[in-house]
Amino acid sequence: MKLDERLQADSKHIFELEESTLLLMNNSLVDWFMLIPRCDEIEFTKLPFELQTAILKEINLVAQFIQGQFSPDKLNIATLGNVVSQMHIHVIGRKFNDPYWPAPVWGQAGSRIYTDDQVAKIKQAFESFYAAKNNRA
Amino acid sequence: MKLDERLQADSKHIFELEESTLLLMNNSLVDWFMLIPRCDEIEFTKLPFELQTAILKEINLVAQFIQGQFSPDKLNIATLGNVVSQMHIHVIGRKFNDPYWPAPVWGQAGSRIYTDDQVAKIKQAFESFYAAKNNRA
Repeated sequence: MKLDERLQADSKHIFELEESTLLLMNNSLVDWFMLIPRCDEIEFTKLPFELQTAILKEINLVAQFIQGQFSPDKLNIATLGNVVSQMHIHVIGRKFNDPYWPAPVWGQAGSRIYTDDQVAKIKQAFESFYAAKNNRA
Repeated sequence: MKLDERLQADSKHIFELEESTLLLMNNSLVDWFMLIPRCDEIEFTKLPFELQTAILKEINLVAQFIQGQFSPDKLNIATLGNVVSQMHIHVIGRKFNDPYWPAPVWGQAGSRIYTDDQVAKIKQAFESFYAAKNNRA
């Protein structure tokens, strides 16, 4: 499964989940993650329903991570694919005081890339979160 | 379950599904539907997982209706809730030649309200679609 070049250029790799790759959008102004299911289908609702629910579990996992780590005021969850057709599901922690609020995050002017250290910390936080979840299960 | 006044003002009622109310956004420039689950929770991922999958089935149903009825080039599925907090899930048929493409639909200037006749036809089409689905089941 090859990752679309634009998705790759705009994001940092965080983790390989069972059904999808977890990426972090390289914009530290919002807590913006993306799940990239390993499939060729571009419409989520055309996937077998069992696969949809497996991916939905991963959406829940990322939502829970964002809530624990960043205390968002609202989650935004979306799959659009108008610009990049490879299926990608946005899971975004929004805050009342983030620079785009209350507008959606797409197509906004201005962003701020992460430092390598910031990315490493988020990656490590997710790995710890995931390990703790699995130990409990 | 009371419908938020802003959602009500911006939309037309189409159908009562098992878990949610189906609304049509009153903008005929795109094929834009919304599912309003009957719950007080504002975050989709905080609902019990069984309820999430039941709502996901309704998302699939609406997606299938849009695909059969309007032949979209891409579906956009999203739950944001930054402006109206009552949970609502957008299921939108997008076309390469719709006036907003490829931008997301939210916050776009310009819209065109439906005539009563147009709304009645969409409502009837959904009712027929739903009846046919249930007869087959």
